Amino acid sequence: MAEFETFNGGRSRKITVGDLQVPFREIPLTTGDTFRLYDTSGPLGGDPRLGLPPRRAPWVARREARGDTNFSQLHYARRGEITEEMRFIAIREGVTPEFVRAEVASGRAIIPANRRHPELEPMIIGRKFLVKVNANIGNSAVSSSIEEEVEKLRWSVQWGADTVMDLSTGADIRATREWILRNSPVPIGTVPIYEALERVNGRVEKLDIDLYCDVIEEQAEQGVDYFTIHAGVLLRYVPLTANRITGIVSRGGSIMAKWCLHHHKENFLYSNFERLCAIMKKYDVSFSLGDGLRPGCLADANDDAQLSELRTLGELTKVAWQHDVQVMIEGPGHVPLNLIRENMDLQLEACHEAPFYTLGPLVIDVSPGYDHLASAIGAAVIGSQGCAMLCYVTPKEHLGLPDKNDVKQGMIAYKTAAHAADVAKGHPGARDRDDALSRARFEFRWEDQFNLAMDPGTARSFHDETLPAAGAKVAHFCSMCGPRFCSMKITQEVRAYAEQHKLDEAAALEAGLGEKASEFAGHGGSLYVAEPTS
Amino acid sequence: MAEFETFNGGRSRKITVGDLQVPFREIPLTTGDTFRLYDTSGPLGGDPRLGLPPRRAPWVARREARGDTNFSQLHYARRGEITEEMRFIAIREGVTPEFVRAEVASGRAIIPANRRHPELEPMIIGRKFLVKVNANIGNSAVSSSIEEEVEKLRWSVQWGADTVMDLSTGADIRATREWILRNSPVPIGTVPIYEALERVNGRVEKLDIDLYCDVIEEQAEQGVDYFTIHAGVLLRYVPLTANRITGIVSRGGSIMAKWCLHHHKENFLYSNFERLCAIMKKYDVSFSLGDGLRPGCLADANDDAQLSELRTLGELTKVAWQHDVQVMIEGPGHVPLNLIRENMDLQLEACHEAPFYTLGPLVIDVSPGYDHLASAIGAAVIGSQGCAMLCYVTPKEHLGLPDKNDVKQGMIAYKTAAHAADVAKGHPGARDRDDALSRARFEFRWEDQFNLAMDPGTARSFHDETLPAAGAKVAHFCSMCGPRFCSMKITQEVRAYAEQHKLDEAAALEAGLGEKASEFAGHGGSLYVAEPTS
Repeated sequence: MAEFETFNGGRSRKITVGDLQVPFREIPLTTGDTFRLYDTSGPLGGDPRLGLPPRRAPWVARREARGDTNFSQLHYARRGEITEEMRFIAIREGVTPEFVRAEVASGRAIIPANRRHPELEPMIIGRKFLVKVNANIGNSAVSSSIEEEVEKLRWSVQWGADTVMDLSTGADIRATREWILRNSPVPIGTVPIYEALERVNGRVEKLDIDLYCDVIEEQAEQGVDYFTIHAGVLLRYVPLTANRITGIVSRGGSIMAKWCLHHHKENFLYSNFERLCAIMKKYDVSFSLGDGLRPGCLADANDDAQLSELRTLGELTKVAWQHDVQVMIEGPGHVPLNLIRENMDLQLEACHEAPFYTLGPLVIDVSPGYDHLASAIGAAVIGSQGCAMLCYVTPKEHLGLPDKNDVKQGMIAYKTAAHAADVAKGHPGARDRDDALSRARFEFRWEDQFNLAMDPGTARSFHDETLPAAGAKVAHFCSMCGPRFCSMKITQEVRAYAEQHKLDEAAALEAGLGEKASEFAGHGGSLYVAEPTS
Repeated sequence: MAEFETFNGGRSRKITVGDLQVPFREIPLTTGDTFRLYDTSGPLGGDPRLGLPPRRAPWVARREARGDTNFSQLHYARRGEITEEMRFIAIREGVTPEFVRAEVASGRAIIPANRRHPELEPMIIGRKFLVKVNANIGNSAVSSSIEEEVEKLRWSVQWGADTVMDLSTGADIRATREWILRNSPVPIGTVPIYEALERVNGRVEKLDIDLYCDVIEEQAEQGVDYFTIHAGVLLRYVPLTANRITGIVSRGGSIMAKWCLHHHKENFLYSNFERLCAIMKKYDVSFSLGDGLRPGCLADANDDAQLSELRTLGELTKVAWQHDVQVMIEGPGHVPLNLIRENMDLQLEACHEAPFYTLGPLVIDVSPGYDHLASAIGAAVIGSQGCAMLCYVTPKEHLGLPDKNDVKQGMIAYKTAAHAADVAKGHPGARDRDDALSRARFEFRWEDQFNLAMDPGTARSFHDETLPAAGAKVAHFCSMCGPRFCSMKITQEVRAYAEQHKLDEAAALEAGLGEKASEFAGHGGSLYVAEPTS
């Protein structure tokens, strides 16, 4: 068994479970117990030039050896085969392999797992599973090196990213992707139109389906697990954006809209959709059907442009499913709180319950610098209503490119949203971590509180600011109120009284309070409080 | 007219409207227009030793001269009198004075406005008005000086606090409060049991109603606008907390519970509630009926202890209303997203639509260091469902005392939540600021985006990190994607095309696209995008 180590500023260790070596993270508690967490961090600390161990290689090799032509998990699920990926996920999520298979077979969940990405630790995206979080990375014209992108990947999964999208543009796009894939324990998504546009030197009108298919075949060959494809931006929908405040805000959407207008032809991704399916199934790349007409501000939310495209994405979902290709649906964006439910309900209906994957949504437009927070509100709400994966937003959204701290802030905001959604959905065991931390809080087990926190290092450093002494970590009061004004102790006193008299607590309170009131008074003890308000 | 000045890192100026000099903040736009905001900041920059001008003094003097004995706004509202406070609020909120009066008369809204707090700029708390935010300040045994507390007050209202609670304990509690009141343009709330407990040297069992009435009379005389009073913590409810994970987490609640157990008597605040009412109405101090049994973790949410106390608060609301004393009801705390609606619905029903005032709620327990964010999610949701005021939570919650930056982070998280709620409720004009910022975003008016943002300085500095040159503030692309990969421009191109051909935009698109496709292609122009994702 591995030793406990310092991870994200707290104590924990990586463990694996079963013959498939499913990873978990174990936190030591001062009570002698341990607490087990879902873990996305993958094998840490290796040489990026060597890449991660190809754990899925033997699984895939058997399928190739027997001559399979459709490698999609949906294909296997529909013919009743429980794959290693499904077994792995069952252990990870605490459900049966058959449940995983059935959800995939129905299209309600996807397992993004290109057979050319053997380094992957399989995960599932669907509303009956834990809500997932995607982090975006990627260089741009100005910015970072390949090594920096690998470091961003590692940083993202260390803070809990379930999938990562590589949105790189510019030079080295292919080499960057290769490094990312070989070092990624999580599914990698891309937006292939970016590379296609690079190949025509940014001249949108030169794009065509042959070029695009070359790009996706090459990316599939590299191991990309899902593609964002804006096949629902139809020519006739473009005029619907004319009276919007912010028009078209999706890069891919604007590229396809411009192509449609230039040629006055239908979107070539729509009209050649089955050619795409043929490539996807050979590798098991999942569709992430892009919402190119998503709203870019509250005023444009749930308008005709957005909802028309959504219905087209539903139509394309059925086409993909005819090929046993896995599909999820991308969603907004900017949506006021009162319109979120309609987004979720319409998506489930129009897209036949294919998993929904939203960017936020932001619930206000006036929070530049804090859009991670404004969008985490929308993300938590739509997650609780059934959205399966949340694409994070960082504090730099609308202002600049995120640095390392922005990535962390975005991840924590979105892990908060996803966890709030899991608890709200009543996902089995989702609240266990909260209960464990709350017990530690009530019993003033400070070290356990820090280690169970989403960001142990920050929790500890905030506590240290007021009460840095090591003794304060076992003190029976909080730094907010000092020893006199703390409240938790009174319940502890009541319980101690019951214990001492060998009484069941409630009985002690109900029966004993009358005649025992004076005895209780003798106990004395100071007052404790856990929260700084009233 | 005042000059524009630098305020919170942006350009704006304070203006006043009408004979009552109702304050607003005006933001200059590069289009030549201005945008007007609700403003809580009060007269800035004065000498704290002099205090603020007593703008309400003549209003109150007239009422005293005519021999009034009940000064509550509820009393005036019920007898059909529209006070200066109501007229002031009507202008502030953009409604009629009669609407304000009727909402106050019904008990659905309160105007916390002690006649001894003449420095106050009146505001209203009720679910048909803008959602309000409370900030907590206050020294503790260890910490800050009086000057520091006044500075915290000013900092809070500068970032939008609608009310401020002074939770000071320890020495100088009375002098601190005096300085705060004389310098506060917003209502000040306190928890009088803290001062009462100081007077008996922390010995809970020595508390009694006479001492308590002395304390509230003195605080009312100083000008405190609302009191948190834990009159709903009944003896028989204390056993209901025995099986909770975190027991009793409210300071005031734990004090009253201990008193009840010690004496085996009913809570003296409950059994002498009408004595309290008699004092409150002489000054017009509002009740903030405290939730002493609020849950301190998700597991304890909506339990019998919490809901029993809520029903008692409803009973006390009716008693207060018989005396024409204004009432709001405090609420939790820690509540999973799926149980928030039940909290709001039960509160409205049990408390006869008296305004609800909640602390968060936090929607997860595992976010120490980020509880401002975890609770802003719950606050936005309960605000959108009708909660009238949100008590902020800072990043230091559960860990330590907030410093200046924590207060700012808490305020911004809660202004975000409150604004999201206002938009979701369809509050008239609530979305105007979002639309103005979104228009600026679409038109690449960067300075306008910064100035309209909740935190102009932070928005600007984040933008500067990537593109610091002044030219970038008028550039037609974002720093995320560089000039090639931006999407907004395509809609602008479409619109320019329509303009040039003197056509209505939609008609241009619908009618002209066929034969004009080749012409459009000739326009060229690069692609622009506003958001970094797909």
